[in-house]
Amino acid sequence: MNMINPQESNVRVLLARRPTGAAVAEDFSIVEEAPAALADGELRIRGEWLSLDPYMRGRMNDGKSYVKPVDIGAVMCGEVVGRVVESRNAQFAVGDQVAGDLGWQTLAISNGQGLRKLMPNVPAAVQLSVCGMPGVTAWCGLLLIGEPKPGETVVVSAAAGAVGSVVGQIAKLKGCHVVGIAGGANKSRYVVDELGFAACIDYKAGRLREDLKAATPKGVDVYFDNVGGDILDAVLARMNPFSRLPVCGLISQYSATELHGLRNFRSVLVNRIKIQGFIVFDFREHYPRAIDELATWLAAGKLKYRETVAQGIRAAPEAFIGLLNGANLGKQLVKL
Amino acid sequence: MNMINPQESNVRVLLARRPTGAAVAEDFSIVEEAPAALADGELRIRGEWLSLDPYMRGRMNDGKSYVKPVDIGAVMCGEVVGRVVESRNAQFAVGDQVAGDLGWQTLAISNGQGLRKLMPNVPAAVQLSVCGMPGVTAWCGLLLIGEPKPGETVVVSAAAGAVGSVVGQIAKLKGCHVVGIAGGANKSRYVVDELGFAACIDYKAGRLREDLKAATPKGVDVYFDNVGGDILDAVLARMNPFSRLPVCGLISQYSATELHGLRNFRSVLVNRIKIQGFIVFDFREHYPRAIDELATWLAAGKLKYRETVAQGIRAAPEAFIGLLNGANLGKQLVKL
Repeated sequence: MNMINPQESNVRVLLARRPTGAAVAEDFSIVEEAPAALADGELRIRGEWLSLDPYMRGRMNDGKSYVKPVDIGAVMCGEVVGRVVESRNAQFAVGDQVAGDLGWQTLAISNGQGLRKLMPNVPAAVQLSVCGMPGVTAWCGLLLIGEPKPGETVVVSAAAGAVGSVVGQIAKLKGCHVVGIAGGANKSRYVVDELGFAACIDYKAGRLREDLKAATPKGVDVYFDNVGGDILDAVLARMNPFSRLPVCGLISQYSATELHGLRNFRSVLVNRIKIQGFIVFDFREHYPRAIDELATWLAAGKLKYRETVAQGIRAAPEAFIGLLNGANLGKQLVKL
Repeated sequence: MNMINPQESNVRVLLARRPTGAAVAEDFSIVEEAPAALADGELRIRGEWLSLDPYMRGRMNDGKSYVKPVDIGAVMCGEVVGRVVESRNAQFAVGDQVAGDLGWQTLAISNGQGLRKLMPNVPAAVQLSVCGMPGVTAWCGLLLIGEPKPGETVVVSAAAGAVGSVVGQIAKLKGCHVVGIAGGANKSRYVVDELGFAACIDYKAGRLREDLKAATPKGVDVYFDNVGGDILDAVLARMNPFSRLPVCGLISQYSATELHGLRNFRSVLVNRIKIQGFIVFDFREHYPRAIDELATWLAAGKLKYRETVAQGIRAAPEAFIGLLNGANLGKQLVKL
């Protein structure tokens, strides 16, 4: 069975070259190809939503990292939700809604590995955000490494983003005093007014240290770091004895040609801080419980979210560059 | 009962002023006083050995730390072993050998709190090193935070020092590939030839990164950090996925007027490193087991050590300044 139009082509965004510093449009190229025939065991998915995430910037660089970089000329990596339009795989039927790392393209071929079927009661796009990889990342990093206790102060950077917004809301559900850090007055208002954080610091206002001090009168017990750099330095100076610092991302450093020199590392010793870098894939055995809790909170109206949506695969590079510059509010998606 | 000579005075080293950068002799003052009379419950100890340790440099600074700084005009803090010479405390008899934080002085008064009686079969001075605070620090940081597994690579800085030398020898006993970092060819030879590490890098030779790479062909699984700064940066770049990094000291930073900016923090995320600052006092419940194991290894000839001994309390400031400059080999003591 084949539900694709004979004229339908696969539009793909490829990595054209490795960026130097900030990614620019010329680092990508867009190609349009006739879909290849399926081999036995394969299925074809027409993408509906593409997720754009900061970690992708790291994959554009060469050099040792936790997964290998995207090759020059290869399709950009990324999570997609879509619908099966052709199948030679007994596990998947035409019409099934699935999610997986299918890359920046409109018609993907998969052998089924790593593909998951969507939950029926949660909107498809939300399975790329609150109930997808960003939400699970927030859940695992905050609860398994941060271990927040009621009454403690939890700070999260990139607080208006897909991960940060969930981190703060979970911390609130756990009874914590929650402070966000975000770029710009608009995002900061959203974090306080809509997400319900106790405070949000606009780091672009130029009073990061003073504002952080005022918002955390009892110091910081958990800092969920998405950004690294100077903001990490400022929060290190506010950490309490025996505090925890899950390192989820270092977005300020991904495009940096000159790395930030971290000056307040001494706080790690003085305050016996536990710092732990993590990647959501390290916690696979916790996924079912995480997704279940997230979906339950979402259904009960306890997790709010926003989406920033770009239209069409050809808009993906520009939307991604915007994401790295902080132009989005909430989850950055591309409607394919 | 009173075993002190009526003419015997208490010679004390006081903190005269807070150092700027490196500590100098003028930061200390030496006073000689007639001993005060004992109150009920108190005892007097004549010091035999004073331990000098890098952490003391931190106590000379003002500002927030894990314990309060030494006050200007107060006696410098420090562990002493000595003998009870006068007692109005039922727990301690004249002649008892004890250890405790009695400060840089020859005749100390204590109310018995925090004082421990010495083990009979271990030399007194060793109860300030291998079987004292430095040894217990090594045991707790390496085993409870570093969690080394047989076949893993363990790196320790200040490897010829009181803590580092024990860290490496325990790691060897646990079946690890052990690499030290020390300052100078003399110390490096001692670490390899006498302590039996697989290799020791002389960071003063100017090839830190190349030598570290050559000595750790399989990367680094545990880095026990005593120094911080540029050496920490170099080791961060060699850390393996899921490696552990107990932070015990930052000796390179204690006297720094300009803090080192740590550039390789990205490795924490990429390699999911667990970094944990600690202070031996956090692990009190483990002391008995640690001391018991250390004493057993020592008796079996499995833990080697060296001592650098300064003569007389008046030599303490100079010996301490030497310790901070790396002049000592093994445990720095003052024979009182």
